Amino acid sequence: MINKGQELYKKAKKLIPGGTMLFSKNPDNFLPDRWPTYFSKAKGKNIWDLDGNMLKDMSLMGVGTNVLGYSNKEIDSFIINKAKLGNLSTLNCPEEVLLAEKLIEINPWAHMVRFSRTGGEANAIAIRIARAASGRDKVAICGYHGWHDWYLSINHNTVYDNLSDHLMHGINSTGVPKYLKDSVFPFEYNNFEMLEKITSENDIGVIKMEVQRNFPPTDNFLKKVRSLASKKNIVLIFDECSSGFRETFGGLYNKHDIEPDLVIFGKTLGNGYAITAVVGKKDIMGAARNSFISSTFWTERIGPSAAIKTLELMEKLESWNTITDLGNLMRNKWKQVSDNNNIKLEINGIPALSTYNFIHKDNLKFKTFITQEFLKKDILATSQFYPSICHNERDINQYAEIFNDLLFQIKKCVDGEKSIDELLEVKSVRSGFKRFN
Amino acid sequence: MINKGQELYKKAKKLIPGGTMLFSKNPDNFLPDRWPTYFSKAKGKNIWDLDGNMLKDMSLMGVGTNVLGYSNKEIDSFIINKAKLGNLSTLNCPEEVLLAEKLIEINPWAHMVRFSRTGGEANAIAIRIARAASGRDKVAICGYHGWHDWYLSINHNTVYDNLSDHLMHGINSTGVPKYLKDSVFPFEYNNFEMLEKITSENDIGVIKMEVQRNFPPTDNFLKKVRSLASKKNIVLIFDECSSGFRETFGGLYNKHDIEPDLVIFGKTLGNGYAITAVVGKKDIMGAARNSFISSTFWTERIGPSAAIKTLELMEKLESWNTITDLGNLMRNKWKQVSDNNNIKLEINGIPALSTYNFIHKDNLKFKTFITQEFLKKDILATSQFYPSICHNERDINQYAEIFNDLLFQIKKCVDGEKSIDELLEVKSVRSGFKRFN
Repeated sequence: MINKGQELYKKAKKLIPGGTMLFSKNPDNFLPDRWPTYFSKAKGKNIWDLDGNMLKDMSLMGVGTNVLGYSNKEIDSFIINKAKLGNLSTLNCPEEVLLAEKLIEINPWAHMVRFSRTGGEANAIAIRIARAASGRDKVAICGYHGWHDWYLSINHNTVYDNLSDHLMHGINSTGVPKYLKDSVFPFEYNNFEMLEKITSENDIGVIKMEVQRNFPPTDNFLKKVRSLASKKNIVLIFDECSSGFRETFGGLYNKHDIEPDLVIFGKTLGNGYAITAVVGKKDIMGAARNSFISSTFWTERIGPSAAIKTLELMEKLESWNTITDLGNLMRNKWKQVSDNNNIKLEINGIPALSTYNFIHKDNLKFKTFITQEFLKKDILATSQFYPSICHNERDINQYAEIFNDLLFQIKKCVDGEKSIDELLEVKSVRSGFKRFN
Repeated sequence: MINKGQELYKKAKKLIPGGTMLFSKNPDNFLPDRWPTYFSKAKGKNIWDLDGNMLKDMSLMGVGTNVLGYSNKEIDSFIINKAKLGNLSTLNCPEEVLLAEKLIEINPWAHMVRFSRTGGEANAIAIRIARAASGRDKVAICGYHGWHDWYLSINHNTVYDNLSDHLMHGINSTGVPKYLKDSVFPFEYNNFEMLEKITSENDIGVIKMEVQRNFPPTDNFLKKVRSLASKKNIVLIFDECSSGFRETFGGLYNKHDIEPDLVIFGKTLGNGYAITAVVGKKDIMGAARNSFISSTFWTERIGPSAAIKTLELMEKLESWNTITDLGNLMRNKWKQVSDNNNIKLEINGIPALSTYNFIHKDNLKFKTFITQEFLKKDILATSQFYPSICHNERDINQYAEIFNDLLFQIKKCVDGEKSIDELLEVKSVRSGFKRFN
């Protein structure tokens, strides 16, 4: 029987091109025809679907937004009070100034801040400011930076030597103006020579990158990037939308004893309320005064209020330590259970944003099977685990037991004793999109 | 003595380039050094500043967001309940599908919807989809369409015959890539020949315009635009971020018996909560499936929930009639009072978004003086009046009496009996930015 979420999703596909607002929340990425897709309620680590089932979220926790758990009582009370006092008016909300002060305190090398409501916007603001400050239009990037034209234009670039590896597969750029061709150049993480070549062959004014996604930096990569940027007067932007507040009270860059010129925060910043920030040095940020960057709903009050309370709680609870410990615990279980079953698993990401893949041609099918079976036990489990402070060791042990049973069956498929197609009750998930990392 | 708002604003200018998130909420546009700038509370038509003064908003009502008044009780209760149930999770919120259905009901020629959280974003989404659908990159525009690169690139265009009238003065495009030069072409409202010339000289794929801002359409302008677009297979987008739900339950386009291919709503849609929408025909919207348009915070629940409740209330109350009546009442008062005082006033905009200017070289100084004096009576008054359903005839009569006293003094300045510089206790406001209309 089709669940109510899938029923609603059928309607959604007719009404909303793509079906969902975020690619990473599309049910076909997880469990076609079965994934509950919509929620009625979410609290702590649990989500209630439209059929009233309570599901434990051992997967994405809002795609990384809810480090302090769903519907955190203290944050909700704080923003509900603000909403009752009025969310928006002809005048501005003082919370934006308080939040700016706090973010400068957390990033003491920085002096100024701009806010927006989505990560894509924050990325577009940072790029605008950096181009304005450097006076140069060309950008080198590494990582994922949203949906806007400036970024997706990479896929229009001239492909030298047929190196289609330089394109982002699965990110479709139709409708992005061809004019932007060869304005943004991707480089691989830990490939300093590649970045050096790009900056020597093009008049690059901006380097924009994630501090770390899948692998840690090697051979002083980040320091070399910083020193190259300084030498060539290139604005260095760290996009910490995903990594921010996962390992430190602020950017992951803190762990590497490095300062960018601009840093972007999103995701965790408002614990599930929409708020993103661009934080940076005075000389660079000041260039924003010479560019029109303005939007009505950036003046609403819930966003900065949620961030003020979230930062207060994260600082008090040192949530980055808790989620990193939980992430490491899960990685150990993944490794232990896969070793026990003689299955080859590749584990990636920083601990608080851990992902795995089977090193096997049937990787996607195996992952679909895992999600299918966990859901039968009312657990949302994908190949990612983004822990919150609401998770605990017991959750991970329970997960590991189930995971062990499932890998036992997958091992039979690997060995040819069973067919994964017979185990699958739905069609396999599709593959995600490519980033540069 | 400096007020607490101005005190905080001094700090803000150091922390936030530009001082505010929205250009149109910058205190220097209204009353330098005096404008209260920040609010602590807002309810109905009233705003409380940081000094605890209750001010009646006879000006912008959140720059047009709060048609149903500040802190509308029914909307607040509705979204507070949603917040308590959880604002965001790994699954999607069903409210986005319900809102999509409602918007299709309101725009029966349309079939599909995408949501975002700011007007700039909605504009960028519409442009992406339209370019994808038409397969052509060049755009003709008329009106104001946000801060993104695609739009601001106009100021990089080749200026033919030194017609710098084709640039948007006051909108600074530093940091917008020069690559986009000559990709977007502005045309003047009611100047069909200009649009025709642009489309015949360039391979325009998209026409994007406000249905009406300062003047009504003449000589079947809108119908001609529609028929040109259809003939040349150009996607026609109406940007109704400002005009939507001001004269009809939906777009202003309804009054002109015309259908666009895409329409954008913002501002009024969530009565002060952040939500914007792109609504359009299946053939066009479907192109979004071939383009990566995706953002985490587009999945939060408050935005679409606020819109569902706002639409329900607007429909029930027929708020567009109330605000249009109030707008007309104010315009009549402006006219009557200025006629009485022999002052030349130019009144523009649709009734629910009315603005005036003095036809005099000291226009900006006169407007500053008006704001200065109204504020002494605890009234926020600028040269715009964007009414809400919380306003009434008494408010407008009280306003008119004060306005009459002030025009009496301004008349003396016009006649050279007094100096406006002596009446001004602060420096004059700056001029706004230019749009094409």
